[in-house]
Amino acid sequence: MNYLTYLSVFDKLTKSQQNALTKSSFVRSLSKGELLHNGSQDCTGLILVLSGQLRAFTISNDGREITMYRLFERDICLFSASCIMNSIQFDITIAAEKNTEVLVIPSEVYKSIMEVSAPLANYTNDIMASRFSEVMWLIDQIMWKSFDKRLAEFLLNEANIEGTDTLKITHETIGNHLGNPREVVTRMLKYFVNEGLISLSRGTIEITNKNGLKNIMD
Amino acid sequence: MNYLTYLSVFDKLTKSQQNALTKSSFVRSLSKGELLHNGSQDCTGLILVLSGQLRAFTISNDGREITMYRLFERDICLFSASCIMNSIQFDITIAAEKNTEVLVIPSEVYKSIMEVSAPLANYTNDIMASRFSEVMWLIDQIMWKSFDKRLAEFLLNEANIEGTDTLKITHETIGNHLGNPREVVTRMLKYFVNEGLISLSRGTIEITNKNGLKNIMD
Repeated sequence: MNYLTYLSVFDKLTKSQQNALTKSSFVRSLSKGELLHNGSQDCTGLILVLSGQLRAFTISNDGREITMYRLFERDICLFSASCIMNSIQFDITIAAEKNTEVLVIPSEVYKSIMEVSAPLANYTNDIMASRFSEVMWLIDQIMWKSFDKRLAEFLLNEANIEGTDTLKITHETIGNHLGNPREVVTRMLKYFVNEGLISLSRGTIEITNKNGLKNIMD
Repeated sequence: MNYLTYLSVFDKLTKSQQNALTKSSFVRSLSKGELLHNGSQDCTGLILVLSGQLRAFTISNDGREITMYRLFERDICLFSASCIMNSIQFDITIAAEKNTEVLVIPSEVYKSIMEVSAPLANYTNDIMASRFSEVMWLIDQIMWKSFDKRLAEFLLNEANIEGTDTLKITHETIGNHLGNPREVVTRMLKYFVNEGLISLSRGTIEITNKNGLKNIMD
């Protein structure tokens, strides 16, 4: 099984380009919590998620975090190969949120093909535009949405990703996703408890009134 | 004078591609304040700034604004041609901050060349990566920087752009750049006055202590 066929562009490449990518790519396993990529000094390569889940986030000078986007099965991560483009002037950190398998496509191989292949360059454009759209959505959220709405949306989204209304997640982790201090998260969660939307126990948040959360979100 | 030669990629295109771009492009003049592009329903074309200054910003549902980036002479605006890529799923508004002349490159002509030209596709990638970097910088600012630092940086940057320490700008306009209500801007400007950093008069902000502002910024 050649995982590269997951890339919609793969059959638009020449046979020798396909071979170069296939020969150089390799599978890598990550444990939950493991860092895959740490800022622009790394040039890990392009990452194709085979299974599991990755999180792309930025870190402030004093260690605060905010999630930019997540990557699921068959998603491609470009910014782990930021050296393929000089104009990428920012740091993103990527970590495994679950045990994850990825295919690593070495940057220099990808770059050398992209330079001559219009299909691959346009494919890369498309990936970047998708991520750009997610980041613009994020700006919209942090600029104009109150924290109760963002937290309600986050909880509903987590329940959707995990396929359960019982979320095993700490207040600190939520804060790192949303870019807020833990205390702010705890305070709002307690407000949600008082409103009968969720219940809290050690390390667990249970959504008890999904529609109520949806109403807050809108 | 063919303004398209401002594009660093121009001489990597074939003669017929150069001709197609040259024949279809046209100069357009914008008055200060004029809207050039209004969200994703428009597909105005790629914009090459010949003179003047443009501002790219987003608008919240209830009309609040925040500046994403600015475009100066020889800068290229891609998102005014968002129809060239399906994955661009966000709205940006572009307006002239000064009387401005631009070269408009029609989207469909650019797109048809980009699809077959690796140099043009890679050039487009580079532009998008630059804008992405600016937007990531913005997230860093709004998430982690206090408003006094952002305002000090904005004033120093304006003085730099305008080449003068006497800025003709309203508090509301500053609010629209930084994504804050006018009252918040006014309050912080008054604080700057008390600290001896600026002086205010009708419609004008004068920077009286540049180093003081720099100290706040850091």
